[in-house]
Amino acid sequence: MRAVETLLHARWVIPVEPHATVLEHHTVAIDEGRIEAIVPQAEARQSFQARSEVELDRHALIPGLVNAHTHAAMTLLRGIADDLPLMEWLQRHIWPAEQQWVSEQFIHDGTQLAMAEMLRSGTTCFNDMYFFPEITARTAASAGMRVCAGMILIDFPTAYAGGPDEYFAKGLALQDEYKHHPLVRCSFAPHAPYTVSDAPLRRVQVLADELELPVHMHVHETAGEISDSLRACGQRPLQRLHDLGLLSPSLMAVHMTQLTDAERQLVADSGATVVHCPESNLKLASGFCAVQKLLDAGINVALGTDGAASNNDLDMLGELRSAALLAKAVQGDASALPAPEALRMATLSGARALGLGEAIGSLQAGKWADITAVDLGAVETRPLYNPISQLVYAAGREQVSDVWVAGHHLLKNRQLTQLDMADILQRAHTWQGRIAAADAAPHST
Amino acid sequence: MRAVETLLHARWVIPVEPHATVLEHHTVAIDEGRIEAIVPQAEARQSFQARSEVELDRHALIPGLVNAHTHAAMTLLRGIADDLPLMEWLQRHIWPAEQQWVSEQFIHDGTQLAMAEMLRSGTTCFNDMYFFPEITARTAASAGMRVCAGMILIDFPTAYAGGPDEYFAKGLALQDEYKHHPLVRCSFAPHAPYTVSDAPLRRVQVLADELELPVHMHVHETAGEISDSLRACGQRPLQRLHDLGLLSPSLMAVHMTQLTDAERQLVADSGATVVHCPESNLKLASGFCAVQKLLDAGINVALGTDGAASNNDLDMLGELRSAALLAKAVQGDASALPAPEALRMATLSGARALGLGEAIGSLQAGKWADITAVDLGAVETRPLYNPISQLVYAAGREQVSDVWVAGHHLLKNRQLTQLDMADILQRAHTWQGRIAAADAAPHST
Repeated sequence: MRAVETLLHARWVIPVEPHATVLEHHTVAIDEGRIEAIVPQAEARQSFQARSEVELDRHALIPGLVNAHTHAAMTLLRGIADDLPLMEWLQRHIWPAEQQWVSEQFIHDGTQLAMAEMLRSGTTCFNDMYFFPEITARTAASAGMRVCAGMILIDFPTAYAGGPDEYFAKGLALQDEYKHHPLVRCSFAPHAPYTVSDAPLRRVQVLADELELPVHMHVHETAGEISDSLRACGQRPLQRLHDLGLLSPSLMAVHMTQLTDAERQLVADSGATVVHCPESNLKLASGFCAVQKLLDAGINVALGTDGAASNNDLDMLGELRSAALLAKAVQGDASALPAPEALRMATLSGARALGLGEAIGSLQAGKWADITAVDLGAVETRPLYNPISQLVYAAGREQVSDVWVAGHHLLKNRQLTQLDMADILQRAHTWQGRIAAADAAPHST
Repeated sequence: MRAVETLLHARWVIPVEPHATVLEHHTVAIDEGRIEAIVPQAEARQSFQARSEVELDRHALIPGLVNAHTHAAMTLLRGIADDLPLMEWLQRHIWPAEQQWVSEQFIHDGTQLAMAEMLRSGTTCFNDMYFFPEITARTAASAGMRVCAGMILIDFPTAYAGGPDEYFAKGLALQDEYKHHPLVRCSFAPHAPYTVSDAPLRRVQVLADELELPVHMHVHETAGEISDSLRACGQRPLQRLHDLGLLSPSLMAVHMTQLTDAERQLVADSGATVVHCPESNLKLASGFCAVQKLLDAGINVALGTDGAASNNDLDMLGELRSAALLAKAVQGDASALPAPEALRMATLSGARALGLGEAIGSLQAGKWADITAVDLGAVETRPLYNPISQLVYAAGREQVSDVWVAGHHLLKNRQLTQLDMADILQRAHTWQGRIAAADAAPHST
């Protein structure tokens, strides 16, 4: 008998690699935070002795979901101003609120609220872009959650930094502090083509190549972004990024609702990742990202929720479903983005984009034990003909029962083990009072 | 002190009429199954004496959701064959399974499963179209749920009836049996323009006018339906229905993804209702229904999930969210289908389409007490700036805590009071075994 820390005995294991595979009555053995083996239950019960065993006899185990685009702390602005045209939403509500409220405490409290929601819906890793990323990194690490903290970069001064030099200095200090941390990775996070000038963008790519880090950026989110760029510099943003050397395997281009065939080919040739955020694109009327065409071109497509102010949740299981449904309509083909492809987008493709494809994103011996258990026993997922289909098209976030990150049991039978829910709710309530009182056109009651 | 049966003391009451209204700290008083009054809590505690009082201090009360298009019993086929082109899905999986399995027992068991899911997600009334509607009606009534049972009509013979005459005879017997029942209403349910001939359609309209009943029909679901009709009879289906006299206030035209401007005007002039099923339209790649344009034309638009085989759930709260998100992208305007409009679609507009606008669909004194309570206290709906926005964009089905139909407490703190969950799950499991074994191209594991 080999001694291991934990055995998870599951009705189904959906490892994502190999693709579209469902293992029945298998066990995941975990030791020192990593997956030791995945074997049939009968074999596991004979071969391993574990300090802890979990029976998951109505559950599917999947790789922890990777949310490839968040602004976690913005969860404190969830629902502050909905149903407004994009520019009114940004200029009259979101930007003024950010200018007034964003601080280290705001980031800490908002990130904890976001993590509570993300863990409760099966997400184990999030790729964040926001101010004070060192607070995001510290808050995530102290809760045991995996994060890629974006070294935010924007031309204009904010409460966080006075200009490009200070953004770089703070970002690089963050990267230096966390470069050997098992849970924290850093990315460069230049906000968007229209908010970052050529010189800092060139510097991003030099540093990204040197440090082997991803570059996380909003690109081609709306038609207006394209026409503004054509007016300002005579180029579409993607062409400008290409000329600046940013189209590379390290790029995570978020949204990409506006692409010509030639641009799609350019992205495919570059090895860049597209991060698809379907619910944000719908809610802000940004346009439709042609996901199946991207996949057909061989592009790595990851999935993100965007911030809770434009979604309004951080539920990757729901986002997965929205992506799979929407792709069919956009492609005009009910067989587009089938369930196993959607699940891979929400796990392994995100991991690969972050440079973590060998560490997380699928259930494989040797990878970190970042695992989500979904209880498929409820009426909402019965009868059950195909577990992957059921996960994508019928399961709800409330069916996520347990979550492990690096072998640590962070959600246990729907209870958070590392985060204090009452405290998080109390702090959200305090922020709500302040923010609602100050919002230019309050909707609060 | 006036004696009443029940007092619901709620943090928020969202009555839908008046539009976009939120009442804070109000009480709904219920007596003899109907809403007696809606008054501030302090006043209610002084004025009423109740046998039962329910404290809902983190909850919003809304009218019970009206699912305006279901095939409830098809829930037993949930997920049997996903990600397939429409015709392969229908011809190789759904139709063969229906031919083999549809029976009175199938309808009973499938309808109970569907009702369990619907009640758990806040739906109090469903407008159904399927075989053996008398079983659907009886099963719903015995569980205390409100239903509109469709008198199904189709040219070809099925296990239920041999041809139009028998469909009419069975339907009219059903209508006669239930015409005074407080929970059951009937509609004519000719399946679609392409499956019902002119003569029976003319007869439907004569009878619908005489009996003052709705006509529930799939119309303009796909582009293929239009081109097939042009080939077969030289007319678009809507024009044919118009010529046959079916465009009237009694018509509930389901899907309507393919409409010219002139057709939209025709529908508006007729007073017919469009039933929008966004998730089914997406999943089957049927096309996009231009909801905001329909509303702008003054058309009554209701909301439905369609059957669980093409959705794959019966969650109206989720459907409401999908509708509100999708309408913005389709309209190219982030202010399209705002949250209060979406909520009205899912409640009062459905009630009106069924001819029940004076009986249900909003929280008003004198209407039936069909009420859903949603707990907005969870992290997923915090902070909370606007309860209607939070309901539509952030709340999940699991936050539905309680449901009343005609004053009966059918869901109590998430527990069903009239349906036996263990029995329903066991029967779903038995059907799953049979159906999976026989499916032509099984996905079952």
